[in-house]
Amino acid sequence: MATTGAKNSAKNVEEISPELQRKAKAAKPASRKLARSSTETKNDALRAIARALEESHAEVLEANRADYAEARDGGMDEAMLDRLFLDESRLSAMAEDVHTVAALPDPVGEVIEARTLSNGLAVSRRRVPLGVIAAVYESRPNVTIDISVLCLKSGNAIILRGGHESIRSNAALARLVQTAVAGAGLPPDAVQMIESADRDIVLQMLRYHGAIDLLIPRGGASLIEFVRDNALIPVVTGGVGVCHTYVDSPANLDNAVDIAFNAKVQRPTVCNALDTLIVHAQAAQDLLPNLAERWGKAGVDIRADRRALALFGPDPAASVHAATDDDWGTEFLSLTASVKIVDSLEEALEHIEHYGSGHSEAIITDDHNHAMRFLDEVDAACVYVNASTRFTDGSALGLGAEVAISTNKLHARGPMGLRELTSYKWTIMGDGHVRP
Amino acid sequence: MATTGAKNSAKNVEEISPELQRKAKAAKPASRKLARSSTETKNDALRAIARALEESHAEVLEANRADYAEARDGGMDEAMLDRLFLDESRLSAMAEDVHTVAALPDPVGEVIEARTLSNGLAVSRRRVPLGVIAAVYESRPNVTIDISVLCLKSGNAIILRGGHESIRSNAALARLVQTAVAGAGLPPDAVQMIESADRDIVLQMLRYHGAIDLLIPRGGASLIEFVRDNALIPVVTGGVGVCHTYVDSPANLDNAVDIAFNAKVQRPTVCNALDTLIVHAQAAQDLLPNLAERWGKAGVDIRADRRALALFGPDPAASVHAATDDDWGTEFLSLTASVKIVDSLEEALEHIEHYGSGHSEAIITDDHNHAMRFLDEVDAACVYVNASTRFTDGSALGLGAEVAISTNKLHARGPMGLRELTSYKWTIMGDGHVRP
Repeated sequence: MATTGAKNSAKNVEEISPELQRKAKAAKPASRKLARSSTETKNDALRAIARALEESHAEVLEANRADYAEARDGGMDEAMLDRLFLDESRLSAMAEDVHTVAALPDPVGEVIEARTLSNGLAVSRRRVPLGVIAAVYESRPNVTIDISVLCLKSGNAIILRGGHESIRSNAALARLVQTAVAGAGLPPDAVQMIESADRDIVLQMLRYHGAIDLLIPRGGASLIEFVRDNALIPVVTGGVGVCHTYVDSPANLDNAVDIAFNAKVQRPTVCNALDTLIVHAQAAQDLLPNLAERWGKAGVDIRADRRALALFGPDPAASVHAATDDDWGTEFLSLTASVKIVDSLEEALEHIEHYGSGHSEAIITDDHNHAMRFLDEVDAACVYVNASTRFTDGSALGLGAEVAISTNKLHARGPMGLRELTSYKWTIMGDGHVRP
Repeated sequence: MATTGAKNSAKNVEEISPELQRKAKAAKPASRKLARSSTETKNDALRAIARALEESHAEVLEANRADYAEARDGGMDEAMLDRLFLDESRLSAMAEDVHTVAALPDPVGEVIEARTLSNGLAVSRRRVPLGVIAAVYESRPNVTIDISVLCLKSGNAIILRGGHESIRSNAALARLVQTAVAGAGLPPDAVQMIESADRDIVLQMLRYHGAIDLLIPRGGASLIEFVRDNALIPVVTGGVGVCHTYVDSPANLDNAVDIAFNAKVQRPTVCNALDTLIVHAQAAQDLLPNLAERWGKAGVDIRADRRALALFGPDPAASVHAATDDDWGTEFLSLTASVKIVDSLEEALEHIEHYGSGHSEAIITDDHNHAMRFLDEVDAACVYVNASTRFTDGSALGLGAEVAISTNKLHARGPMGLRELTSYKWTIMGDGHVRP
């Protein structure tokens, strides 16, 4: 005789704060109602959220002004302040994203596979929501709307835990969502926002068996590591992208310069930006001077290995320094790139295998066999031929939206859209069938 | 600037035993070779394993005789001894299962989805192996073959950790597999067997970041709980089945008796066997006496709630006792069943929601709306209408074989076959594409 199967029994429930307990307990029954709600009702709720973002945002803007003032007075830097800032036009852009999600197909109820077995049993697998999803994220308040809307559309309740800098903005946005949800006839308890600033809450979430079906951390490497080391509940992590672009020989070097420029410069602070450019020795002489010029104008700081350093010459068009060991396998999240020269595709593959984070890797080549080998052999969520790694993004790859970019191999890999927020159940219909 | 992305860096590597380190380090490059092996080569290896089980099994049988003698002398009970025992006919049955897996389609390389975006990027997702899979299991030595074969076919290397009672049998089977794998031209390091009896090895596996891509525990509730509480690497757990069958009104009561009999009696020691029969009050009077007779003849011990106790009467055809609180939500794994009377479908659903383990749940009904509500509302891996929960099994549900039955919602739910041992990668092909 084995153990009891009673669910919802958090281990060490005494460790869980009253706020989290209360909100998780409200979210669970709300998730069950939401799981059975029609696509139309869920879309009504989404459209009501979009409308509120456009029209009833006074409370949100006021809360954001308070967050902003406090952050500025506390010395937050300009880039972070900009991420925190909301105004009518940003709220309108958020509303547009909500309409995009409303227009996507509902994943819930989709029949993945159906067949009748030779014994007459009708077996199928159908998509169902996961239940209660928790999200831990930092700074940008629009994440509150993105994640809420994706979870609602996929039939999941959500427990939000945003960064403390934007706590008033997030709380106001969560209230806006709850009001819209209730107005559409869905349970407002399906959206919960943790307001306590206690850092320990994240640890409690990670241990709250039975109450949270999936936790998604969105943040830097330290958050991801903390989650990995402490999670006792299912998590999908990602976001850390050490991304390589390998310029092969032969390759179209004009394309190579354009792609390396785009991947490094277009938005250097994100996870799919280029960190290391690997260049075949036969392409380097022609490529590096042009690249130095393009990157140099954009202010890219180059960390070059010994051979690249020589090729950039004594007076390069960009800031070039000798690379140190720390410049390989590093996610720069800034206008910095390391450059390495190799003598073969194999050497490039080995470097990527050793230093990559399994996020996004690209080859620029005109050799078809090399392209195919790169696709086959590189072990990453997204593998590119002759394109910029910047496309690793739910909307750019055709999912319509994304809740995160997974670098895990289980459950979901790469951009996670609505389907990746679902599970499935087997349904089996018989007519008195017993197992022989 | 964030952290390094260098892979294969186990946290606290000093905690990992030399044996596990050595075998995991050998498994990783083997997994990369295996991932690129052709279907034909993998099937050759599987057929060689089947042949060896039929023809070159002297070492295996000798090892099994030693395990068996030691277990018998140590006082192992008959049922466990029988699970441990191997002979030529059992090895032949194992060989047949291997041929079944060889005949299944190869999941690796399958294109899940492919499309060309409006910008011309060719995007697709293709199935890839997970990498290195670790399996922790108990007693039955055939699991060594089952899991090895499923992992090899899906392109994964495997680190096996069997029960200590069958350590000689498992080691001999692993050697047989390694020899067959090498003979087919695949890397023999793709199959590793941990021989140390140290229990701490399981904990080390659970913490071995980067070396193990998925750990599958197959065992009782205490192993599952240990894994859940200690895993720092991806795991899929399952196996604990608190299974309910609800007999509705109206229902075909002959079918109901047959199904309840099959679900409880056909193989009572497995996770998909019936634990609790829930009966609508209007069906109970007709059902319970017949059931008592069928169950009674098979030796089923019944734990009845107050109302069921009254209906079984003073002289039932089976052993009937008053149920205690411990009889609900319990996986009996034996010829014991609890019986509860309810007045409505809702009451049955509430009981299942509270006490089920999310494994397999059934309704016996002639009411179509009730059948549909049960399918919709029960949150379990497998939900049945008018059939025995005993069908929850990879081969019974058409997967050909299974490595485990997941009661998780992430990655895989229910029986896990070859596909569930894979991940996917996105491949994106462009022609100089940059992100606007």
